[in-house]
Amino acid sequence: MSNKLTHEEQEALVISDDPEHPANLISELCREFYKLGWVTGTGGGISIRQGENVYLAPSGVQKERIKPEHIFVLPFAQSSVPKPGSKRDFLRIPSKKGLSESQCTPLFWNAFTMREAGACIHTHSQHAVMLTLLHPRDAQSFKISHQEMIKGVRIGGVGKTLSFFNTLEIPIIDNTAVEEDLTESMAAAMEKYPDAPAILVRRHGVYVWGNTWEQAKTQSECLDYLFEIAVKMLLAKLPLVGDN
Amino acid sequence: MSNKLTHEEQEALVISDDPEHPANLISELCREFYKLGWVTGTGGGISIRQGENVYLAPSGVQKERIKPEHIFVLPFAQSSVPKPGSKRDFLRIPSKKGLSESQCTPLFWNAFTMREAGACIHTHSQHAVMLTLLHPRDAQSFKISHQEMIKGVRIGGVGKTLSFFNTLEIPIIDNTAVEEDLTESMAAAMEKYPDAPAILVRRHGVYVWGNTWEQAKTQSECLDYLFEIAVKMLLAKLPLVGDN
Amino acid sequence: MSNKLTHEEQEALVISDDPEHPANLISELCREFYKLGWVTGTGGGISIRQGENVYLAPSGVQKERIKPEHIFVLPFAQSSVPKPGSKRDFLRIPSKKGLSESQCTPLFWNAFTMREAGACIHTHSQHAVMLTLLHPRDAQSFKISHQEMIKGVRIGGVGKTLSFFNTLEIPIIDNTAVEEDLTESMAAAMEKYPDAPAILVRRHGVYVWGNTWEQAKTQSECLDYLFEIAVKMLLAKLPLVGDN
Amino acid sequence: MSNKLTHEEQEALVISDDPEHPANLISELCREFYKLGWVTGTGGGISIRQGENVYLAPSGVQKERIKPEHIFVLPFAQSSVPKPGSKRDFLRIPSKKGLSESQCTPLFWNAFTMREAGACIHTHSQHAVMLTLLHPRDAQSFKISHQEMIKGVRIGGVGKTLSFFNTLEIPIIDNTAVEEDLTESMAAAMEKYPDAPAILVRRHGVYVWGNTWEQAKTQSECLDYLFEIAVKMLLAKLPLVGDN
Repeated sequence: MSNKLTHEEQEALVISDDPEHPANLISELCREFYKLGWVTGTGGGISIRQGENVYLAPSGVQKERIKPEHIFVLPFAQSSVPKPGSKRDFLRIPSKKGLSESQCTPLFWNAFTMREAGACIHTHSQHAVMLTLLHPRDAQSFKISHQEMIKGVRIGGVGKTLSFFNTLEIPIIDNTAVEEDLTESMAAAMEKYPDAPAILVRRHGVYVWGNTWEQAKTQSECLDYLFEIAVKMLLAKLPLVGDN
Repeated sequence: MSNKLTHEEQEALVISDDPEHPANLISELCREFYKLGWVTGTGGGISIRQGENVYLAPSGVQKERIKPEHIFVLPFAQSSVPKPGSKRDFLRIPSKKGLSESQCTPLFWNAFTMREAGACIHTHSQHAVMLTLLHPRDAQSFKISHQEMIKGVRIGGVGKTLSFFNTLEIPIIDNTAVEEDLTESMAAAMEKYPDAPAILVRRHGVYVWGNTWEQAKTQSECLDYLFEIAVKMLLAKLPLVGDN
Repeated sequence: MSNKLTHEEQEALVISDDPEHPANLISELCREFYKLGWVTGTGGGISIRQGENVYLAPSGVQKERIKPEHIFVLPFAQSSVPKPGSKRDFLRIPSKKGLSESQCTPLFWNAFTMREAGACIHTHSQHAVMLTLLHPRDAQSFKISHQEMIKGVRIGGVGKTLSFFNTLEIPIIDNTAVEEDLTESMAAAMEKYPDAPAILVRRHGVYVWGNTWEQAKTQSECLDYLFEIAVKMLLAKLPLVGDN
Repeated sequence: MSNKLTHEEQEALVISDDPEHPANLISELCREFYKLGWVTGTGGGISIRQGENVYLAPSGVQKERIKPEHIFVLPFAQSSVPKPGSKRDFLRIPSKKGLSESQCTPLFWNAFTMREAGACIHTHSQHAVMLTLLHPRDAQSFKISHQEMIKGVRIGGVGKTLSFFNTLEIPIIDNTAVEEDLTESMAAAMEKYPDAPAILVRRHGVYVWGNTWEQAKTQSECLDYLFEIAVKMLLAKLPLVGDN
């Protein structure tokens, strides 16, 4: 760890009276996501990039009980990409014993570097997982159109909002044994589908990003709504695309 | 903007210790509606008309995080109908940068002018949307009878309450690319179905109104209950009308 | 109204620091029941009998917003049974304009007089209503066995708890246009099924009672659980009785 | 009762300012579990073993209203196994009249003695019960694989976490009339399936344990998620094992 900050400087990175400080937001939003069923059983989470700093929740902890002092802070500029096995630079590591940064770190980085996202949310929502299960094993993507909630989703997650008549398409990638091993296939899907605002992971969940935490959150809500109604439509044998 | 009020007079329109002040109610009710799944992803909302003032939430923001100072106030008497492309008179515009009034404004106005409603609620409830999806493409309305919850709904949304033996009928209109473009078709449906307490919008949601915010809210709850049970009944192949 | 109490004496009947005072309990429990979906749209509620006093919520109001000062108090001993058209004696009528006592009053009285219940809960739970809809039109009762949650239900609602191997049976009566008109048929069903802990009302909801508010509440929860799982079992074509 | 502690020493066992004290945790967690639908109608609960002390909630009470002073404390070392009919040693019995310790006591003890667990959770989750109902009557266990949430579950509930490619197997035992009578069959299933992190009880619910309360809780969440999605998959005729 190449951290040169004093203990006081490190603490100042996460302790703030401002409810919109990333360390406070991550704690609050994880509590909200827990209520939505997105991050039960320590799964899922959110990372926020503010300027040159990236704020990360710890791995494998109860997400609804995170406190600001549990937050990791990394410089966005890393000496190497924070992929599996690579070295990672930290600005702050929580003093609480046994915490390690989110296993989703390199996946969040995909959103930050490839889409210049300001925040990335990962959920284990059952709607996302059931949707992948209801797709054929070899389906490459999920498509839906003619839904008002599509209008809350941005092209590529960070561009202009979609229209009611647009078809939203989200790639589905296979899950891997280790979360970090999704890094390459997620990046490949993001390159192949530049307009996609999210990546579905079969039998696992979804990654959603946005320019800001607000946009990442509201797009996560719109997409989760669409995943849920798509599951209902598939079970009722209604077509997802078109206005029948 | 023909606003002649001072900044202090404008602020006084929305800052109040009274929890039943429209600006406080809109903030509180939007938080409640969020928990019900009615206004996720910035969708939906509520407008309250009190005397000659109309209170509106901003467009495209997280509805569960609205504060009273984010509320727009318009005179009910407008120099022209606040339809797409028309000028709108304001009494107060929030000082926070980037806020614009709800895109549902002309639709709320339909309820205020055609039904003399005191409040109008718009939700993206999945029960409403699934109900429209389970109706044939050319269905003009949704009908249900013999449900206790029908008794909580008023004729035309503002008249006497329905009886258990009445058949409730709610028109279904097609969605449009831009929310304001629903204005004419919603008005036409309200004219054709004078007894209807709400308008369903296919693949989008529902508009519900009442004499007061309490009546708009309780009718929204009764209708959402009926939409939900109607979806369950249709999936179980039970008839919606009659007492079989 | 034969009320001889002074205004101060009347207020003392409902204003208390004790969270277990019936007027406080009714307000709190209605908020809880709202979250469970039992009393949306002004429907449903709870009445508590404490000694010779009966505490009642108002009719047609938002149940999750009831305050202790909105509570009616009646003497349990009435000059005539508080049935439709009959006179009712009050100890306290809320001073807030426009409130009238719950339309369920004579139905709650059935539980108080026929079962010596200390509390009676009425819900519009969709699980109860769907269950009645999934029963044949001429079914007289709902039966279920071999469910752990049956053990939380008492014989007749006020006797010994049932065993896992007992078959729980709850009569289903037809709904009527006016709630009070259910009085006779509910009483007849309670006489015919002396062991039943509740009465289901087709296309309407359920009445559940107990010796105390705690027993009425926990039995309402057990029964609602059983209604919900019974609906799921019927839709999955699983038999409700027996251990297949 | 072989209790030699003074009243003050007994109270000191459960009254603490530390939110992580077992008596505070049991109260808080039962409120949380109630919101999840795991402990409605007085069912279910959690026991925590801390060093040589075991903390137990009372039997047959509203689990969401438990206070620290309602908690029983037993020495982990008992003069005999706390099975049906056996004597039990207590360190503290609540002074509130009518409370008796959880009927699950010997089942919790199974987890403490056979797995050296630090906490054991029992829920009546409908997902667990529906899952047992959707299995053939003679099925001995539930199996699932290829789900990300499997990675939150530990071998035997207390060992290493499972991999995405592992098949999770949980035995299903028959329910009995009296909860304590499950003791032997639960122990037998735990011996036969040493890797199982939980025991499903047909038509009843599930027992889940872990090294700590945090692990018992997060594993209960992961398993409940898996039970829920398994029910959805069975209803949609999707295989639970394999990656089709």
